[in-house]
Amino acid sequence: MSDKKTSIENAVARLTANYRKEELFLTKSGRHLPVRAAIIDIVKEMRSVIFPGYFDIDSGAAVFPEHYTGYLLNDLFDRMKEQIETAFLYVGEDTASACGKAARVTASFFEQLPDVQEMLLKDVQAGFDGDPAAKSREEIIFSYPGFLAIYVYRLAHILYLEEVPFIPRIMTEYAHDHTGIDINPGATIGEYFFIDHGTGVVIGETTTIGNNVKLYQGVTLGALSTRKGQQLSGVKRHPTIEDNVTIYSNSSVLGGETVIGENTIIGGNTFITESIPANSKVSAKSPELVIKKPRTCVETSNVWDWEN
Amino acid sequence: MSDKKTSIENAVARLTANYRKEELFLTKSGRHLPVRAAIIDIVKEMRSVIFPGYFDIDSGAAVFPEHYTGYLLNDLFDRMKEQIETAFLYVGEDTASACGKAARVTASFFEQLPDVQEMLLKDVQAGFDGDPAAKSREEIIFSYPGFLAIYVYRLAHILYLEEVPFIPRIMTEYAHDHTGIDINPGATIGEYFFIDHGTGVVIGETTTIGNNVKLYQGVTLGALSTRKGQQLSGVKRHPTIEDNVTIYSNSSVLGGETVIGENTIIGGNTFITESIPANSKVSAKSPELVIKKPRTCVETSNVWDWEN
Amino acid sequence: MSDKKTSIENAVARLTANYRKEELFLTKSGRHLPVRAAIIDIVKEMRSVIFPGYFDIDSGAAVFPEHYTGYLLNDLFDRMKEQIETAFLYVGEDTASACGKAARVTASFFEQLPDVQEMLLKDVQAGFDGDPAAKSREEIIFSYPGFLAIYVYRLAHILYLEEVPFIPRIMTEYAHDHTGIDINPGATIGEYFFIDHGTGVVIGETTTIGNNVKLYQGVTLGALSTRKGQQLSGVKRHPTIEDNVTIYSNSSVLGGETVIGENTIIGGNTFITESIPANSKVSAKSPELVIKKPRTCVETSNVWDWEN
Repeated sequence: MSDKKTSIENAVARLTANYRKEELFLTKSGRHLPVRAAIIDIVKEMRSVIFPGYFDIDSGAAVFPEHYTGYLLNDLFDRMKEQIETAFLYVGEDTASACGKAARVTASFFEQLPDVQEMLLKDVQAGFDGDPAAKSREEIIFSYPGFLAIYVYRLAHILYLEEVPFIPRIMTEYAHDHTGIDINPGATIGEYFFIDHGTGVVIGETTTIGNNVKLYQGVTLGALSTRKGQQLSGVKRHPTIEDNVTIYSNSSVLGGETVIGENTIIGGNTFITESIPANSKVSAKSPELVIKKPRTCVETSNVWDWEN
Repeated sequence: MSDKKTSIENAVARLTANYRKEELFLTKSGRHLPVRAAIIDIVKEMRSVIFPGYFDIDSGAAVFPEHYTGYLLNDLFDRMKEQIETAFLYVGEDTASACGKAARVTASFFEQLPDVQEMLLKDVQAGFDGDPAAKSREEIIFSYPGFLAIYVYRLAHILYLEEVPFIPRIMTEYAHDHTGIDINPGATIGEYFFIDHGTGVVIGETTTIGNNVKLYQGVTLGALSTRKGQQLSGVKRHPTIEDNVTIYSNSSVLGGETVIGENTIIGGNTFITESIPANSKVSAKSPELVIKKPRTCVETSNVWDWEN
Repeated sequence: MSDKKTSIENAVARLTANYRKEELFLTKSGRHLPVRAAIIDIVKEMRSVIFPGYFDIDSGAAVFPEHYTGYLLNDLFDRMKEQIETAFLYVGEDTASACGKAARVTASFFEQLPDVQEMLLKDVQAGFDGDPAAKSREEIIFSYPGFLAIYVYRLAHILYLEEVPFIPRIMTEYAHDHTGIDINPGATIGEYFFIDHGTGVVIGETTTIGNNVKLYQGVTLGALSTRKGQQLSGVKRHPTIEDNVTIYSNSSVLGGETVIGENTIIGGNTFITESIPANSKVSAKSPELVIKKPRTCVETSNVWDWEN
């Protein structure tokens, strides 16, 4: 049995030998990775710019919105640019190129913030109109996990389109952590988007979603197969959902050629791998229920909870 | 391409114009919203009052429980009253009314805390009796997400019944964030309630659940349709689950007129939209499995992972 | 109606009477429970030892890895030993025994850290090879919830095998909170393990998983029945998954005698309660879809969203 000193020494010797054998542990020589915590802070504080009344206790927001917003954005600009530059440097861009791209991407990101704000207002409206349990639009901004997920996605998607490494996924995985909703930053999502409850929702990288789409908990918009791994990178492998589609809970729509036509309603617990024409109402013929009553004598194959 | 100064100025100009156009961003003039972080802190600290040995490192809790509890509750009272008052003011109550209601509701909430404590002890017991993987009752209090969710729900439900705006849902969404269990604060839930694993569970606003009910991960107690949106507000649209019912993983029970009779066991992966009589054992006739072996030649419709 | 003073006094009186009636609230006399927050901090900081480039902003990690690692481990050793000792004391070990066991278990844990590091490198590789959306191996370490879950599980499993009370489950529930992936620390899991998306995954206590296994979101590896509660403690009640098996999203494999043979692929949305031979490809015959077009007149039993 080892004592403390021996066990630490042994651990250090082998851990550091591993660091030398495999550069992944320590990150590439002379380079740094972006700082995950810094990116998450930016995402959180940006919310105070877009919805000043909700996530900040500084009442100055309400009294001096121009000053408040300008002050916050100035600070956020430099912090975001630093992370983006670090990300580009890490993947091998030279200093001049990384610096220039970071400045351009950050400026473009900030120019698009008001558009994101306007989109989010529509998403709030979609949530209020779509959920009888919503008591107010404020409640959606405050509390709804689906709204946090779409907010983070709309920011991350801008950076994904600019091909910024690491940061878009760090952002959406922050939202995934807090909501159980996994939207890949590469997905394309239209206006008036609403996800209710949300836990378990997966929206894959090459998914396209139109306007006025509503999803419920456990919906997967996924790929048919991932057996080819990295060879499938960049290939359209997730479905297209057209305008005004509702997909109820725990349904899966799979495959890059699968299109759900506009105005279609997909019932709960369906498993769809082929296109559905517009204006359809789709349900799964539910598996027949086997209902057994006490003291009757029925065949008991495929049961999992009978004390026979 | 914009430089930093221009992009920030443009963003500020448009963001603040949006604030003026749509009062939702800034919250209503002269009013403040309750502070989400303050409410979550109250929920966390209240746990130290109910289970002093678990969530506080202050050993004074064990030595002087009266003093410890009195001291903490005195502090929590004022903080909770302030948030409740803010919530009533925000939705338009005048100052005298909001202040009086906040005092009354907070006092009533505190009077009910010992009842909640007693209910929670029964929920712990239900968890221990129901889960062979539970090593002790302490482990359930410490670690079980289902227990965190029911704890927060039992607090939030008191405020929901008092029609406090915003705060009940902020509370239950805090639990949803940490557990993947989404219990609407409006649901009615009896004694000895246990949710195992829990991720993906949804319990809708008008659900009624009796005593000794056990749910597993992915169970939805939901509505049949939400197409009518806010018109359905207040209508009973989620099911009734009677005493001694177990519902296994990933099953859905939908509809306001659907009643699961007492002593019934619902198997995994079922989809139920009609009432089930008492004392039943229900399983879905599982969809037939298609099992293909290597080098056989079978029709391949509806497959998702064949390299044909 | 109570005023503040009365309502607090009433609450304190009844809460403290409950503390006296039921020792579970206050923890056993003279003993302390381990501190949950301290355990979670250890899990987080241990990540900086294993992947120094990712979770720490101290660039000293890259320049002086031996010193950095030794310094951190020295600190972590004492903190972990204290928690383990506390846990053994709480369940009734005497001081000498608890102290000795804590020293031995902690030393053994630290000796195994480099093995965990090597296993995790293989898990990263499995993730990169298995997911076309992964842009780099670094992204997996940084962002993938499946990777956080397996990291925490691999630490917790060491302590589970040493029969340390409370701590293994506190660790895996920390990961469950952040990922929606619920791996019981008792499960046995081989090399090159990958969980994609992950929300809703449940891996039960007596599950055995071979090498090169890939799971998707919503997969349950669970028990057939838990009606016998604590009588089932220690019984093998969860399935065995052999090498090179892929299980697609939202499938359930249940039962302690159920074995999924090597090289088998299980399609999405299946419900499996019996063994599957090696080299199989399994799909559920999906329930027939009922597709209704506008203005046609079809029987409408079992629908949930028709405005008839």
